[in-house]
Amino acid sequence: MMSFNPVTPEIIQQLKNLLGDEHVSIARADIDLHARDQSHHEAHPAEVVIFPTTAGGVADVLKLANSHHITVTPWGVGTGLEGNSIPVYGGILMSFERMDQIVAVHADDFQVTVQPGIGHKDLNAELARHGLFFAPDPGANATVGGMLANNASGIRTVKYGASKDNVLRMQVALADGRLIEVGSRSVKQASGYDLLHLFVGSEGTLGVITEATLKLVPVPTYMSAVVAAFPTVESAVEAVVAVRGSGLEPAALELIDSAHCKMLRETEGVDLSDNPTLFMEFHAATEATLAMGLEIAREICQELGALSIHATTDTAERKRLWHARHHSYEIMVRSQPDHEFFIMDVAVPISAYPALIAYVEGLKAETNTTAYMIGHAGDGNVHVEFPYKGQAEYDNAMRLNDLIVLKALDLGGTATGEHGVGIGKARYMEREHGQALDVMRSLKAALDPNGILNPGKIFPESIPSIEGL
Amino acid sequence: MMSFNPVTPEIIQQLKNLLGDEHVSIARADIDLHARDQSHHEAHPAEVVIFPTTAGGVADVLKLANSHHITVTPWGVGTGLEGNSIPVYGGILMSFERMDQIVAVHADDFQVTVQPGIGHKDLNAELARHGLFFAPDPGANATVGGMLANNASGIRTVKYGASKDNVLRMQVALADGRLIEVGSRSVKQASGYDLLHLFVGSEGTLGVITEATLKLVPVPTYMSAVVAAFPTVESAVEAVVAVRGSGLEPAALELIDSAHCKMLRETEGVDLSDNPTLFMEFHAATEATLAMGLEIAREICQELGALSIHATTDTAERKRLWHARHHSYEIMVRSQPDHEFFIMDVAVPISAYPALIAYVEGLKAETNTTAYMIGHAGDGNVHVEFPYKGQAEYDNAMRLNDLIVLKALDLGGTATGEHGVGIGKARYMEREHGQALDVMRSLKAALDPNGILNPGKIFPESIPSIEGL
Repeated sequence: MMSFNPVTPEIIQQLKNLLGDEHVSIARADIDLHARDQSHHEAHPAEVVIFPTTAGGVADVLKLANSHHITVTPWGVGTGLEGNSIPVYGGILMSFERMDQIVAVHADDFQVTVQPGIGHKDLNAELARHGLFFAPDPGANATVGGMLANNASGIRTVKYGASKDNVLRMQVALADGRLIEVGSRSVKQASGYDLLHLFVGSEGTLGVITEATLKLVPVPTYMSAVVAAFPTVESAVEAVVAVRGSGLEPAALELIDSAHCKMLRETEGVDLSDNPTLFMEFHAATEATLAMGLEIAREICQELGALSIHATTDTAERKRLWHARHHSYEIMVRSQPDHEFFIMDVAVPISAYPALIAYVEGLKAETNTTAYMIGHAGDGNVHVEFPYKGQAEYDNAMRLNDLIVLKALDLGGTATGEHGVGIGKARYMEREHGQALDVMRSLKAALDPNGILNPGKIFPESIPSIEGL
Repeated sequence: MMSFNPVTPEIIQQLKNLLGDEHVSIARADIDLHARDQSHHEAHPAEVVIFPTTAGGVADVLKLANSHHITVTPWGVGTGLEGNSIPVYGGILMSFERMDQIVAVHADDFQVTVQPGIGHKDLNAELARHGLFFAPDPGANATVGGMLANNASGIRTVKYGASKDNVLRMQVALADGRLIEVGSRSVKQASGYDLLHLFVGSEGTLGVITEATLKLVPVPTYMSAVVAAFPTVESAVEAVVAVRGSGLEPAALELIDSAHCKMLRETEGVDLSDNPTLFMEFHAATEATLAMGLEIAREICQELGALSIHATTDTAERKRLWHARHHSYEIMVRSQPDHEFFIMDVAVPISAYPALIAYVEGLKAETNTTAYMIGHAGDGNVHVEFPYKGQAEYDNAMRLNDLIVLKALDLGGTATGEHGVGIGKARYMEREHGQALDVMRSLKAALDPNGILNPGKIFPESIPSIEGL
């Protein structure tokens, strides 16, 4: 158990001196609003919430906190799913709500420089007039800083990559108050250690992102959708492999399992059968290219025994077809208003995907558990969504989560494909990384010797409640 | 100046005990063969050359060397261009010549696991029967280990990314003999710090790669080429930006300047005018898609004032058109058999590319220097190739190199896009990275406290001859 110093009235005053009175709050409402994310993890109050407006302010606060051994937890907008930004040791909660500006659009370079607090959807709304967009899309309107800190990805990762693949340069504030630049606006970089990717995905435990230059891609001129139902998960996954092997580059390649399809149909009457269903999206520069890709995708689905195939290049029809996938979470929540939901995340090499899915289906049957699967199948990533009510159902979900993570690791996969480690996955780090976890500990000690940055995440020994999880 | 211990006869005997007599050599021929790479940097002999055959052997040697403060320099096949693998402190030269096997092909996952000593061309010859290939292509038959250690890229990076984008998992031996696994065979990973990318591009100074799992892509079914000459570099670069903005995804987008075109034509009679020329390649899954892309590329070149446009989907004709680009280096060397060549490498954001190229052209004219430019234009990367004979011409090339690097940095670029820092670019690290260089030093100290791994690279203070460079 780590120990830190409390935030005293003197510290509060010093924070006010650094940032201005209006950017420092100990109001109950502010504390509560930043005590938990969208996960099942328990809320924990910070002692003070601050809203820096400049990178220099961020650095000054870190220097102060570091010299007093007070913890600092960075906060985007709270859409995390593993407790990644819950201030489990109290201390200072650093919200980026007031650092949400576009610093510069570099349209010719397909780049934009932003402050970390901007929502990626808000950013893309602005970028649309340049014909460009930032591709990673985790669903919720997460901030860019949060996405980078957690290496978020989402449904278009199969074509455009994760957050780590779409960032070129960042400004980062270190625990001791140094403000450094990592990466470069040059897309090619072979100049020294890749500090950029060390900070990306480090969940605010090595430094705090104060600015980022992102890679953008042209808004696709033509888009199409294919929705195909298969008799078995195996045949659906075979189609996934075949589509990727064909040289087509789907922009999205998603699986919804039969239980989830059934629930979506029964709840909202969406046009789905009770069969494992693939959702695909293709992007192209010309209409004819698009049509051709669609034809190939259709042929592949047919050859692999698809029970039904809907394909379209029409925008309205595409949105209709994808409605079920895009709104699956809300529909699920609406379908069981008296339940809470626990969403777990693992990923495996695609060849192991059928084994993973079969394992989850076996577990569900064996334990008579209701759970739904949504998979970023093109990436070998799956989310199992457990509705629960009461302790027994929660415990059952946790037990199944545990088994599924261990299975994913046995299959050569990872404990988390896109939600990050946070609190919930820390217990698997030793098993997944072995001695490499010690290397991570060395890097943490080198960059944050007092351990003030977002403690209680990633490293199992730092988590106060790990025993009781 | 750093100091290390010499390789004594006792150490030689211990190396033989660890690896077997036949894998340890102090023969002059072996020492000489591993004393310099393909760059202009001075040769330096190691004290012993070893040829480990297993990861365990690599780890054992590191442990031994670390405990005796003896340097270890990893060696692929010596195709480096910045002295990256020259053993400037002597010590142990660790060649991966005898660790050149494919460990496993994971065809369904589009992955292959290899030992580090395999040449990427040899690897691709093997992978062809699976319809897959490892995309980064630095030209020479560099080893995969060397490519990863230096984050090599090449002409197809504009579509497929650099080495760092095409690796998923590695086994790495640390200075103290620990053997760790970094990354995962799962393409999606959000599990702890990105150690994978910390070791990639670290030029053997943080750890030694003993195995790697690479991302593969399907061999494209259809390929086309466009070669277009432009009146000015500006119009050529405008075409580069327009092609990228069109949503087309060129697999290669290369610029050869007018001086180089002239030399290629005069030396080998290749069909080029004396104008800045763009070489493009497109990959597609269908013939019709390909033809359509070609048409768009042709229209863009026409609109931007191309003087001539050759476009083809025919394989033989494509190879003929690209001949000049693929063999530009050999042709240049043949054209001036009494000269040596110094090849420099910088990269900038693409919007700054015209300014960089104009600057180089201005410098050449002002100093009456013969030099050729080959650019990975799609990436904002350029190589200036200086032929030299005698000290005065060498010094002039070095002075121009210096000015061009500083200009690239001023333009928001990097001192090296793909050749790495090695010896030659170390002097620019402070200027390019500022305080981030101190962070790199901290990481080096954390992972290699005795500094035994490939000293004399990246960090200016580690380079014995930096004053005289």
